[in-house]
Amino acid sequence: MPKIYFTPGPSQLYFTVQEHLRRALREDIPSISHRSTKFQNIYAEAVDNISALLNLPSGYKILFTASATEAWERIIQNLVERESFHLVNGAFSARFHEISQQLGRTALSAEAAEGSVVEMSSLLIPESTELIAITHNETSTGARQPEKDVESIRKAFPNQLIALDVVSSVPDAEINYNHVDTAYFSVQKAFGLPAGLGVWIVNDRCIEKSAQLQESGTITGSYHSISAMLEKAVKNQTPETPNVLGIYLLGRVAGDMLEKGLDQIRRETAYKSAMLYHTYENHPRLRAFVTNPEQRSRTTTVAHVDSGSPELISYLSSRGFIVGSGYGKYKSDHIRIANFPTHSKEQIEMLADYLSAWKQ
Amino acid sequence: MPKIYFTPGPSQLYFTVQEHLRRALREDIPSISHRSTKFQNIYAEAVDNISALLNLPSGYKILFTASATEAWERIIQNLVERESFHLVNGAFSARFHEISQQLGRTALSAEAAEGSVVEMSSLLIPESTELIAITHNETSTGARQPEKDVESIRKAFPNQLIALDVVSSVPDAEINYNHVDTAYFSVQKAFGLPAGLGVWIVNDRCIEKSAQLQESGTITGSYHSISAMLEKAVKNQTPETPNVLGIYLLGRVAGDMLEKGLDQIRRETAYKSAMLYHTYENHPRLRAFVTNPEQRSRTTTVAHVDSGSPELISYLSSRGFIVGSGYGKYKSDHIRIANFPTHSKEQIEMLADYLSAWKQ
Repeated sequence: MPKIYFTPGPSQLYFTVQEHLRRALREDIPSISHRSTKFQNIYAEAVDNISALLNLPSGYKILFTASATEAWERIIQNLVERESFHLVNGAFSARFHEISQQLGRTALSAEAAEGSVVEMSSLLIPESTELIAITHNETSTGARQPEKDVESIRKAFPNQLIALDVVSSVPDAEINYNHVDTAYFSVQKAFGLPAGLGVWIVNDRCIEKSAQLQESGTITGSYHSISAMLEKAVKNQTPETPNVLGIYLLGRVAGDMLEKGLDQIRRETAYKSAMLYHTYENHPRLRAFVTNPEQRSRTTTVAHVDSGSPELISYLSSRGFIVGSGYGKYKSDHIRIANFPTHSKEQIEMLADYLSAWKQ
Repeated sequence: MPKIYFTPGPSQLYFTVQEHLRRALREDIPSISHRSTKFQNIYAEAVDNISALLNLPSGYKILFTASATEAWERIIQNLVERESFHLVNGAFSARFHEISQQLGRTALSAEAAEGSVVEMSSLLIPESTELIAITHNETSTGARQPEKDVESIRKAFPNQLIALDVVSSVPDAEINYNHVDTAYFSVQKAFGLPAGLGVWIVNDRCIEKSAQLQESGTITGSYHSISAMLEKAVKNQTPETPNVLGIYLLGRVAGDMLEKGLDQIRRETAYKSAMLYHTYENHPRLRAFVTNPEQRSRTTTVAHVDSGSPELISYLSSRGFIVGSGYGKYKSDHIRIANFPTHSKEQIEMLADYLSAWKQ
C-alpha cells in the first residue's frame, strides 16, 4: 500500500522532489565539484529562492549547516560571549537552552507549561542577556509563539540579538524578519526534503557580534564560524564539501513554492489546519493538546488521545496514513500530525475522515 | 555525451548508487523517522559493513558527522586539551593544523614539501603532545604516508593518540587500525556517494580521553561531543536528524564492496594506479608530482603538466572524461585523477590512452 507520511519531520517528500532528483542524476549534480561554477549557480539559486520565499530584508545572509541542531551550537559559539536567555516550552526549546549551558554560557530561561507558550506579561529578561532565543513552533507540543510576541520582545530589548527557531513553521510562518537577527530551520520539515541540511539566516548585527567575539579572543568555532562561512558564502560556496544534492533540491523546491505562491500555500495551510483542529475538537476521544487557539501551530498539530495513541496510530497506519507519536513523555498519549505544503487538501480531508470514523 | 568523473571527490557515483537510490525512494527512506526501528536497522547495517570492510578491531566505534571537516573540529574539541602535533605536507593536513589553532590549542607541526611526506628520520614530537595527526593520503598533492610510518609513530609514542586521515584512501588503504586511535573519511571520495556525510572512527582511548576532558571542565562541544554521540550510537541513532539517505546509501555501497571483496578492489586499484603512473612517466609533457614511488597515492594520482593543465583538462573533458585540476597554487600546473573503486579498468585504460595520445 502506498504510504503518506504526516510525521512532523522527516515527513512526506514535497511532491516535486523525485522529479528534481531524477534531473539531478541526469545532470551529474552529485559528482560536480563544490568549487565549480555549476555549484555556485546551484548555491545562488537556493539562496535567492529562500530569500524571496521568506521575504528576507536585504543584507540578511543565508548559510548552510548540517542540521538545525548544528545551528543551535553555531549561534551560541558565534553570538553569545556570556549569557543567553531562552523561552522554554518543550523539548526543542529546552535542548537549545541546554546547548548554551554545555558550551559554558550562562543560559537563563523563562518556562511555560508544555502545550502553552511563555506569556509576554510574565517575561523578565535581564538587560545583561546577549541573545534571546524564541521558538516559533515547538514541534514537540504543537505550541506556537504568536508572531506579535517577537515584535514585542524586539521593542522591549532593542540591544539584544533575537534568535528565532522556525524549524517546522517556515514557509507558512508570517514572520517580519526585521524583528529577528538570526533564524534557522531544517529541510526535512515543511520543505519536504531528505534530512541532512540546515539553513541558518544571520543579519549584520550577528556578523558584527561574531567579529567582536573573535577580536576579544572568544573561540567562535573553526570552519563554521560566521566569518569562515561568510568568506565562502560571498563566492556562493561553503567551507567544507557540503550536501550538494540537498542544496540543489532545496533551491528547486523553494522555486516551486515561489511559483505556486506563498499566499496560496498559506491559505491551504490555514484551511487544512482548521480542518484538523475541528476534527480533534469534535471527537470524543481527541482534544487539541494546545488549549489556547491563538497558540496552536498550523503546521504541526498535536492531539491528546484519551485512550492512548498507539492504537490510533496503528489504525491510521493500516490505511497508509503514517502520523507521528507524541514526543518524549507524551509518546503514548499524543498524536502529532504535520500539515506541510506537500500535504494536499484531499489527503488531509481523508485523514480527518479516518480520524472522525475512529471509535465514534 | 555521458561523462565520467575522475575528480578526487565529489567524483563518479559508485555504479550501484542509482539503483539503491531508486529502492530508497520506493521504501520511503527519506520520510522515515530517525528514531524508528527501520532507521536503527539502516544505521546498524552501515556500521557493520564499514567495520567489516575496514577490518576494524573490536571496540572501535563508528560515528557520523556531516563531513570530514567536521571530524577535524570534533577531534580537537574532544581529544586535545592543550597540544596537538600535525604532519603537514599539503593543503588538507595544513587545514587540520589550522583548525587546532582556531580552537585555541597549541598546534605543533613537522612540515614536508608538497609532493612528499614527512620522513620518520626527521620527526621530533614532544612528549607533551596529546594527539598526533597523520594524513594517509594528502588529496591536494597525491602524496601517501607509507602505512609502516603509522606503526613507527605508534611504537615511539605509545601514550599519544594517533589520528589518521583516510579521507581519500579507504577502503583501499591497508591500515592496521590497532595502531590508530581515531580515523575519518567522507563518503564522496572512494565510496562514490553524494557529499554530505562523514565517518568518524574512535576507540576506547578516545572515549576515555574525551570523558577526562569533560570531567576537567573542558568544553568538548554539545550535540556532537563523543559522549553525546555515543549515547545515541549505542541505540543505532544520532543526536540530530542526520543525513538518513546518506547513511542508507553508505551501508548499501559498503555491502556491495564487501560482496565484491576487498582483495579484488585492492588488486584492481593497484593495477589501475600502476597504469596511470606508467602513463605519466612515459609522456613527454607529464610527470608524477610525487617523485618517490613509495609515497604515491594509489587512489588520488597527481601529475604535473609541462605546458599547463587547462588545455589537457579541456581535451579530456571534450571526450567526456572529467579530471580534477591542481589544488590551490597548482591549479593550472597539475591534473588530479582519482582511481576509486567505481572507476573500471576499462575506463582507466581508455583515459590512459587519451592521455598518451595527447600532444605526443
